[in-house]
Amino acid sequence: MPRTGRRPGEAGTRAAILAAARDAFAARGYDGVSIRQVASVAAVDPALVHHYFGSKVELFRTAVRTAVDPEGLLSDLFAGDVDTLGERMVARFLEVWEGGAGANASALLRTAVTGGPTADLVREAVLPAVAGELLRRLGVDRREASLRAALIASQLSGLATTRYVLALPPMAGASAEWVVAVVGPTIQRYVTGELPRPLPADGGATTP
Amino acid sequence: MPRTGRRPGEAGTRAAILAAARDAFAARGYDGVSIRQVASVAAVDPALVHHYFGSKVELFRTAVRTAVDPEGLLSDLFAGDVDTLGERMVARFLEVWEGGAGANASALLRTAVTGGPTADLVREAVLPAVAGELLRRLGVDRREASLRAALIASQLSGLATTRYVLALPPMAGASAEWVVAVVGPTIQRYVTGELPRPLPADGGATTP
Repeated sequence: MPRTGRRPGEAGTRAAILAAARDAFAARGYDGVSIRQVASVAAVDPALVHHYFGSKVELFRTAVRTAVDPEGLLSDLFAGDVDTLGERMVARFLEVWEGGAGANASALLRTAVTGGPTADLVREAVLPAVAGELLRRLGVDRREASLRAALIASQLSGLATTRYVLALPPMAGASAEWVVAVVGPTIQRYVTGELPRPLPADGGATTP
Repeated sequence: MPRTGRRPGEAGTRAAILAAARDAFAARGYDGVSIRQVASVAAVDPALVHHYFGSKVELFRTAVRTAVDPEGLLSDLFAGDVDTLGERMVARFLEVWEGGAGANASALLRTAVTGGPTADLVREAVLPAVAGELLRRLGVDRREASLRAALIASQLSGLATTRYVLALPPMAGASAEWVVAVVGPTIQRYVTGELPRPLPADGGATTP
């Protein structure tokens, strides 16, 4: 049923490409995957992959976003009490990594943490989304929201690195409940605690 | 001056290999370097690299350890007041990354965080060293020391990821003083704060 001038079957083809891309990135990481390989698994012409997703970077971003749904996660989290946000944020983060968001989510996140065009993905999509929610909920200014989002990212990315990527025994073996109880207060402090003043200026170092 | 039956010039040859290895790993990461390339830069036979350092993994570990000197760092840190250990630990960590420990330290650490045989290096060398110091200074048991060391690693590795590897603007642009003031209390809590009880059992998940 052509609606926008494109040919029938578009949604199915797009979904097949995306599924092939998620599997490939999850199995071999960002650098180990080519558009040609994805096209081959999805049984389409490589030109069609470019047509739907542009570059390999864009394909990777779309694969991660559709596997993890950061916007959905965030709006759930920020709908609750801001004073329990720290523990709830850690709990949801662990759920996603431990399979709650689909079979490939954790493998894709692993790729995103350990290589590939991660900096852009986090800088342009994840952090602004978190900072935007903080801005709306806390009434802080944009710079403070952005600093708090980066602090949250500093603890959560390290938690993922030690618990899942490096799989250090004490962190990998602890229950989710224990990790939430011990790391939750750190995140809560980064969300609502006092920050040292003056805050760093945008784009450069300041000496307090 | 042959002392152990080896030929003269051993120390110089070993140092030249190590310098070539540090440069190579720092520039191209763990996977991008071969023993043959290192040997070629150091102008020695590859067999000599194997003779002095064993495998590529061992060469990598020796390169990181000699660039960063974790034992020296730790004994300095733990010689001071344990109640200020959090802030001092963050300050020293930033100094190492920002060049205090030599030109290649930060590039090598970057390699260690983002790829290569990092899990083994951290699991077998860094964490036990930190846990051992905690054990001696705090009088806690081995399991608690190991959990506290892993929690410290979770925040410091994420700090390195966001400030140096991803270089997220709010974290990359903040002064070291500001980062120490905001992240120091997190580390201090992981060093001396109360942990949720019961502690996770060794090697498996527990439900508190």
